[in-house]
Amino acid sequence: MSWYQTHCANPGYRKTGFLSYNHQLMAPVETRLRVRYAETDQMGVVYHANYLIWMEVGRVEYWRAAGLRYRDMEREDGVLLVVAEVNCRYLSAAVYDEEVIVRTSVAEVSPRMIRFEYELLALDGGRKLATGYTKHVFCGADRRPAKLPKKYHETLGIA
Amino acid sequence: MSWYQTHCANPGYRKTGFLSYNHQLMAPVETRLRVRYAETDQMGVVYHANYLIWMEVGRVEYWRAAGLRYRDMEREDGVLLVVAEVNCRYLSAAVYDEEVIVRTSVAEVSPRMIRFEYELLALDGGRKLATGYTKHVFCGADRRPAKLPKKYHETLGIA
Amino acid sequence: MSWYQTHCANPGYRKTGFLSYNHQLMAPVETRLRVRYAETDQMGVVYHANYLIWMEVGRVEYWRAAGLRYRDMEREDGVLLVVAEVNCRYLSAAVYDEEVIVRTSVAEVSPRMIRFEYELLALDGGRKLATGYTKHVFCGADRRPAKLPKKYHETLGIA
Amino acid sequence: MSWYQTHCANPGYRKTGFLSYNHQLMAPVETRLRVRYAETDQMGVVYHANYLIWMEVGRVEYWRAAGLRYRDMEREDGVLLVVAEVNCRYLSAAVYDEEVIVRTSVAEVSPRMIRFEYELLALDGGRKLATGYTKHVFCGADRRPAKLPKKYHETLGIA
Repeated sequence: MSWYQTHCANPGYRKTGFLSYNHQLMAPVETRLRVRYAETDQMGVVYHANYLIWMEVGRVEYWRAAGLRYRDMEREDGVLLVVAEVNCRYLSAAVYDEEVIVRTSVAEVSPRMIRFEYELLALDGGRKLATGYTKHVFCGADRRPAKLPKKYHETLGIA
Repeated sequence: MSWYQTHCANPGYRKTGFLSYNHQLMAPVETRLRVRYAETDQMGVVYHANYLIWMEVGRVEYWRAAGLRYRDMEREDGVLLVVAEVNCRYLSAAVYDEEVIVRTSVAEVSPRMIRFEYELLALDGGRKLATGYTKHVFCGADRRPAKLPKKYHETLGIA
Repeated sequence: MSWYQTHCANPGYRKTGFLSYNHQLMAPVETRLRVRYAETDQMGVVYHANYLIWMEVGRVEYWRAAGLRYRDMEREDGVLLVVAEVNCRYLSAAVYDEEVIVRTSVAEVSPRMIRFEYELLALDGGRKLATGYTKHVFCGADRRPAKLPKKYHETLGIA
Repeated sequence: MSWYQTHCANPGYRKTGFLSYNHQLMAPVETRLRVRYAETDQMGVVYHANYLIWMEVGRVEYWRAAGLRYRDMEREDGVLLVVAEVNCRYLSAAVYDEEVIVRTSVAEVSPRMIRFEYELLALDGGRKLATGYTKHVFCGADRRPAKLPKKYHETLGIA
């Protein structure tokens, strides 16, 4: 039994692929991706800035798993999540063509900001690649801070 | 005498740095950049898609040398240069930390489209890295084809 | 019935996901990906150089569908596919968060070179995004041209 | 007098361009770059992960200002600076075509690790874009931790 099967059997975790997810609130959401050649550098491993892009991929799938589509929030309600801070600790290098799990959860949220936490793991063997977080300020279409519209509060667990 | 000094002594070529250029029309414009670690891949050389980004850098400096700022064309006049085609032939691999010359010229231009040609060379030794071209359609802010405003015609040599 | 279902019902095409493919020779191989926020630019659409990265993703899945893993060819046999030329014609802009199909086929192959052709399509609606090709020279671990080892000839249909 | 002239007149700071720097130890080193179109995203500003790439650019110029060339350390002595942690706080968005100053300094260094700190500023007006740090472990060519060779100690101020 692979690492993936083991952990995704855990009902606390949800798998998101292109097609399926459930809508339980605030549990970590797992997204899979495969390392691209373009993402490697001459050290023979993934260039570190790409982990931030993977976190973005995880974040978008987190929204989707919550029943939201970040694209629509941005387009229809002019809600932007402007990045205020990122942090990443690198534990083991990801290599070309391997599959990676991005496990995304929300650590803090208010009508003004949201902080996501991430664990990056190799699908094969479950080796931990990195941990990190990103902090975002909710902004309007003008990129100035603006409270998150009420309609999103419940989904994000804002009381 | 380096390759660079030799060729830039040629009055047909113009050097563009951050600060200086002249405004002679339609001669090739040379731009320098240094290969970033992020641009390499695990083959130990620059990942090929980055050459297209360097062409973009060359193109922007071509505009600047012509007395135009692409940012302002886009912002103030809503003129977009939508990429219609790119072609690149790779002759020699660029390596980390070396300096690269992007020599940009306009091969064709009309009120509807513009085609840029590029030569990429290693600054040290003048080794030819690649040749290529990009074709662009002039568009309005809605990204639909729109004739280039008259005020730009003379600068670009459109009769 | 979506575009995807229609076309993938066509037995000439093969779907490659993370897990499944078949090993029929030389038919086009389709790979799906989702547009990342990082891949957009301020024009509000995907930055053009990213299409080359998607072609790379398609190419790797083509190998996999053929029963080969490019990573292993590189690691174990020191076979590198050095890019010699790329061409891409842009037909319709890809937008953030949409799913894209990369349809990859081999147009030419010999023990010295291989040329891949690509069609990029929007999954939803089947809008054609781009067509292009990439030419590669088979090289040894020293990045100098070297004939492709015999063991790969049959799989690639080299007589 | 621009921000740049003011601050670079301060003898504690050193300007690094392609050609000139001095070798005074451990003062912050300033590097300039211009925002590329490729670095923007559909929010109309620079995509946040690119700041990490700019930090890398600053780091390399820091080495150069110290009389070291990171490329040679890697090639000749097999010294790799493996990234262990990155942090970035985003204060103001960088926009297309503006020039950015990366001010790099060493906050901590030992034979086992080095921590760089960065300030990113807009050249025009001196607006602070971001602050951050990166922690690196000195490794051998096998990417395993290895003490930095003695010959580099003095230059880096390791007693």
